[in-house]
Amino acid sequence: MASLPLIGITMGDPSGIGAEIICKALQDLPPAQRSRTAVIGDPFYLDRANKLIGSDLKFGASTAEYDDGAVPVFEVKVDRAQIKDSKVCAASGDASYRFIDRAVKAALAKDIAVIVTAPLNKEALHLGGHHFEGHTELLAHLTGVKSSFMLLASEKLSSIHVSTHVSLAGAVKRATPERVAATIRAGNDHLKLMGMKSPRIAVAGLNPHCGENGLFGNEEAEQIIPGVKMAQADGINVKGPISGDTVFYRAMNGEFDLVVAQYHDQGHIPTKLIAFDTTVNVSLGLPISRTSVDHGTAFDIAWQGKADYVNLNAAIAYARRMAAGAQAH
Amino acid sequence: MASLPLIGITMGDPSGIGAEIICKALQDLPPAQRSRTAVIGDPFYLDRANKLIGSDLKFGASTAEYDDGAVPVFEVKVDRAQIKDSKVCAASGDASYRFIDRAVKAALAKDIAVIVTAPLNKEALHLGGHHFEGHTELLAHLTGVKSSFMLLASEKLSSIHVSTHVSLAGAVKRATPERVAATIRAGNDHLKLMGMKSPRIAVAGLNPHCGENGLFGNEEAEQIIPGVKMAQADGINVKGPISGDTVFYRAMNGEFDLVVAQYHDQGHIPTKLIAFDTTVNVSLGLPISRTSVDHGTAFDIAWQGKADYVNLNAAIAYARRMAAGAQAH
Repeated sequence: MASLPLIGITMGDPSGIGAEIICKALQDLPPAQRSRTAVIGDPFYLDRANKLIGSDLKFGASTAEYDDGAVPVFEVKVDRAQIKDSKVCAASGDASYRFIDRAVKAALAKDIAVIVTAPLNKEALHLGGHHFEGHTELLAHLTGVKSSFMLLASEKLSSIHVSTHVSLAGAVKRATPERVAATIRAGNDHLKLMGMKSPRIAVAGLNPHCGENGLFGNEEAEQIIPGVKMAQADGINVKGPISGDTVFYRAMNGEFDLVVAQYHDQGHIPTKLIAFDTTVNVSLGLPISRTSVDHGTAFDIAWQGKADYVNLNAAIAYARRMAAGAQAH
Repeated sequence: MASLPLIGITMGDPSGIGAEIICKALQDLPPAQRSRTAVIGDPFYLDRANKLIGSDLKFGASTAEYDDGAVPVFEVKVDRAQIKDSKVCAASGDASYRFIDRAVKAALAKDIAVIVTAPLNKEALHLGGHHFEGHTELLAHLTGVKSSFMLLASEKLSSIHVSTHVSLAGAVKRATPERVAATIRAGNDHLKLMGMKSPRIAVAGLNPHCGENGLFGNEEAEQIIPGVKMAQADGINVKGPISGDTVFYRAMNGEFDLVVAQYHDQGHIPTKLIAFDTTVNVSLGLPISRTSVDHGTAFDIAWQGKADYVNLNAAIAYARRMAAGAQAH
C-alpha cells in the first residue's frame, strides 16, 4: 500500500500560539495520519508545547517514515535566545520566514504534498527583515509567481476572490474580464481536484443589484459578463453575475458549490459569518498547494495552553483532502 | 385607554402578490391589532384576495374605528380594466404610485403612524409615468427630502447603509465624514426610538482590513474615522472602523446592536444571509416612518394563493414596534 501523502505544517511565529495548536491538532489525528503530517519548525518549541498541553507526541527526523504515530519534523534552528513569548520580535519574524522558506523548498521538491501554515505576525516579519504583506505575498515571492487566488472554504459556503489585498477602489479596476475568467478557472480546477465532476460556480456582481442595467455602474457589462463568457466558452458550469445580496444565500442553500467574489470583503463577510472558526484559507494558482488557518498569532493567550485549534484542524483536514485529490489525478 | 397607533400597508402592484400576502398577514393578527392596521389600496383586490385565500376578513372605511377586527381601508380606485394578473402594466404601476402617494399624505397628516409597503414593480412604475428607481426615491420625492438611510433589521443582525443605490466606485466617494456621521446618528436615533437607552453601534471599514494602515486605501483615515469622531463627540456609543470580515460576526454574536455598512452589499450580504425571509427594510431620515418587505412582486406566483407572507409579517411587527416607540417618546 502506498503511504499517505505528506502534509507539512509550518510552525508560524514562535512567540505565538502556533506550536501549541499544532500539538493539539496532531494529538487528535489517528497515528497513521499523524506520521504523515510533518511540522516545519524548531523541535525545541514543539517539545515545549507537547509538555505544556500534556500530550505525548513523539517527534522524529523528516527523512524517516514512521509507523508508530511519530511526527516527522523538518528542523529549522532559530535564534531562541532572542525570542520572547507573546512578543513581537525580529527573531520570531525571521523564524516564521525561514519555516515557510523551508516548507516551500520541500513542496517544490515534492517532499511535501500540501503546506498548512500556522499564523505569523506581519510586524515581526518586517522587523526580521522580510518585507512581505503576509503569507500570500511571501509564497508568491518564494515560488516566483505574480498573482494567486484566495479561496475561503467552509462546509456550507466557499468563495474565491477576484482580488484581495487592495483598496476597494482598486478592486473595482482589478476585476478585468481576464482576471474574472482566470478566477473562475482556478476555482473550477480546484473543485475538480477535490473530486467534483462539474462544479456549479456562481459569479457575484460587483455593484448593487449587478448595476441595475447600468444605472449603478457599468462594470458588470464591461468587465464581469465578458469574463464569465470566456469561462463558459471553456465549458465551465458557471452562472452570473448574480446580485451579491442573494448569491451567497443561494450558494449556502446548495445551489452552487462556489461563489466568485469580486473583492475581499464580498467573499470574506458571508463565509466568515457562517463559519468563523472553521473557514480554511486556500491559496490557488501557485506551483505548490497550501491551506492556512484564518486567524492570527494571538500573543495575548500564547504559551498558556488555552488556544483553540479547531481552525487548524479544519486546515489540516482540507489539506489532506487536497493531497488525496492530487494523488488521484 | 388610548387606541393603538394606526399602521398603514400600501397594497403594492395589483398584478403581483401584494393583496394576498396582506390578507394572509392581517388574518394572523389579533383583532385589536387588525383594526389598527389599515390598507391603502383598492378594496376590489382585497375582497378578491380574501376569497382566494379563504379568509373572512372584513374591510371598512378608513374614517371609522372598529372594535370587531375589521380592517380600515384608505380607498384608492384604480383602472381595473387595464390591470392584468402577473403582468407588467402601466395601470398597475400607476396604481402602485397612487397607493404610496395616498399613504404619504395620510402619514404627513398623522392619520397613519407608520407606512408598511408591499412590493411594487419598477418597470410598471416607469410605464405608468412615474420615473423613480423604487420606493426609496419615490418616498424622498413625495416628502421633499434629498437623502434618506436604509436600515435592514433582523433579529440577530441589523445594518444601516452609508449609501445604497449607487455604483461601488461611487459608494467609495459617498462615504464622506459628514455622511458617515449622519448615518451613525440616524441609526442611533432609531434604536433609541425602539427603546434602547445607549445603542452599541459599530462602523465597518470600507477597505479590506480597514485599509491596513493605508496600504489598501486611505478612506478609513480620511473619511471614516473623522465621521466616527463626529458622532462620538455627540456622545454616541460608536466604535470603529472595524474590519468588515469580523464586525458583522461580532454584531451577530451580541457585541453590537447595529453595524454601519459603508455600501449596499456590505450590509445586505450578511443581513440577508442569516435572515433572508425575515429581514425588514426600514427607511430613516424621512418626515414619515416606513418599513417594507425585502422582496419583489413575484408575478410568477401571483394570484395563486401560495405567496409566502412571513416577510410582510415581520415588516408589520417592526412597524408596530416603531409606532409604539414614537408614541412613548
